[in-house]
Amino acid sequence: MADFMIHTLGCGSAKPTPRHNPSSTVVEFRNNLFMVDCGEGTQKAFQRQRLKISRLGHIFLTHLHGDHVLGLPGLVSTLGLQDTGGSLTIHTFAEGAVILKKIFDFFARNLPYKIQFNILSPWEEDIAFENQSLRVRTVPLDHRVPTVGYIFEEKPRPRHLRRDMCDFHGVPVRCFNNIKEGADYIKPDGTLIRNAMLTTPPDPSLSYAHISDTIFLPELAEEIGPVDLLFHETTYLERDAALAAEYGHSTARQAAEMARLCGAKALLTGHYSSRYADDEEFVKEASAIFPNTLLNHEGLRTDLLKL
Amino acid sequence: MADFMIHTLGCGSAKPTPRHNPSSTVVEFRNNLFMVDCGEGTQKAFQRQRLKISRLGHIFLTHLHGDHVLGLPGLVSTLGLQDTGGSLTIHTFAEGAVILKKIFDFFARNLPYKIQFNILSPWEEDIAFENQSLRVRTVPLDHRVPTVGYIFEEKPRPRHLRRDMCDFHGVPVRCFNNIKEGADYIKPDGTLIRNAMLTTPPDPSLSYAHISDTIFLPELAEEIGPVDLLFHETTYLERDAALAAEYGHSTARQAAEMARLCGAKALLTGHYSSRYADDEEFVKEASAIFPNTLLNHEGLRTDLLKL
Repeated sequence: MADFMIHTLGCGSAKPTPRHNPSSTVVEFRNNLFMVDCGEGTQKAFQRQRLKISRLGHIFLTHLHGDHVLGLPGLVSTLGLQDTGGSLTIHTFAEGAVILKKIFDFFARNLPYKIQFNILSPWEEDIAFENQSLRVRTVPLDHRVPTVGYIFEEKPRPRHLRRDMCDFHGVPVRCFNNIKEGADYIKPDGTLIRNAMLTTPPDPSLSYAHISDTIFLPELAEEIGPVDLLFHETTYLERDAALAAEYGHSTARQAAEMARLCGAKALLTGHYSSRYADDEEFVKEASAIFPNTLLNHEGLRTDLLKL
Repeated sequence: MADFMIHTLGCGSAKPTPRHNPSSTVVEFRNNLFMVDCGEGTQKAFQRQRLKISRLGHIFLTHLHGDHVLGLPGLVSTLGLQDTGGSLTIHTFAEGAVILKKIFDFFARNLPYKIQFNILSPWEEDIAFENQSLRVRTVPLDHRVPTVGYIFEEKPRPRHLRRDMCDFHGVPVRCFNNIKEGADYIKPDGTLIRNAMLTTPPDPSLSYAHISDTIFLPELAEEIGPVDLLFHETTYLERDAALAAEYGHSTARQAAEMARLCGAKALLTGHYSSRYADDEEFVKEASAIFPNTLLNHEGLRTDLLKL
């Protein structure tokens, strides 16, 4: 089990091609799966990736175009056949909840688990999800319809105990968790042992940004921050920048510019237009500006620890 | 171009498997494509089969379970991207038209072609479609929800002209079409030349029955008649006949029994439950009763002229 792994289920755009599925990505964080978008065919891609549907608790929709949503009714029905119990939370705008509820009421009646909607605003930053180790926040994007991106941020990890120093100062085991969280230790005789004496700094926290669909928004770089991995849509190549602007999309060159601006460690391409025969072109164009650009494809697993 | 060809796009059932897509079949009749059911992933299977989406004018839904319908919103959206013009007619029950219209209004706005609904009754036989060479009629089935099967019947073909006899009797070319349709010829001197003197019988008309999903209904055999090809669902094997009855499905043995009862030339299996690992078992079970049983699989093309 990876700590923080990105699974690409679909990295095509609206028009289907034999090579690509429409949009869907799974963020595997420790024992949990979080899905971003769910285009048609996602449940099959999910299966091919050997992911466990019972570990999927949250689906985050970026916007309400069919190529990002239309796999959801089938996935929800199939979850219903599995009798997993539990619940599934769908994060979307109010109008998404309305139409999806109508569809589920018709095609996925009497589910043996609960579907909840977490209603997001498309116009301002928001926290979509938070638990003790992970936060998922939204950033408004600029597409033809209301759209948000999602930033997955691991919270600070525990510091590493220096067992030798703990033993030396006689720290009892029951205090270890607090010390790993940064607490100092006070000996029975009242002596204060500062945390820095008992621990070494934690491993760095990992982060993933999912930015699709949108025009190039340089001012977004600061809101995204220096993530480990930036998925930024590359629907077009720079030679079709006019089309990108017309349809509310970005070019590979613009995605690379964004990766550079926000100080990402790596860039992942995707949401390829069906007009291009060779996906390598996206990487070629982007890596001229941002060398650590990864070629996205269905089935790709990107381990954030190994970037 | 085949005269009458059945293309299998999906022959799995509700629970997806790596091997099978949910239900969809395309009937290619001369220059036109007619689709029966449209499960998730159909548009991609359609593409793989190298069928032209611009030739698709009619989609017939057997019933409103997701595994027969949920590929439709994506297919309709994609048709919208193609700018084909023309129209698409969806044959379904009233409640299907209501929910599909809501979905299309949300996910497939401003289509450059017209979507029409032909509302069918689930309770009585009906003519869903008819033109000068083909008729598609419905037969009510018995499943957990209202369901119909479809019978595609080619109308009588033209008789073959005996050019030698036509020349001998001086029949002008302008009369040939009527004579092929069965008319006699009256010479300028008033002599009657009977059609049987001028023609030989037409090639037999072809027919295809699509029967899914349903319990075994022996009384249906007469309504179906001696079709060239009977697709009859084989969701289960006979050892699970109790499950078949419980969920409103048939076994491979029952499908074979139906093929025998209606005097079909060949039987096509399908709608396989995901519980079985080996599809050959369906054919083995069916062919013990009805030898000319064909193993269905995605990508299969069945030419009705070659059965």
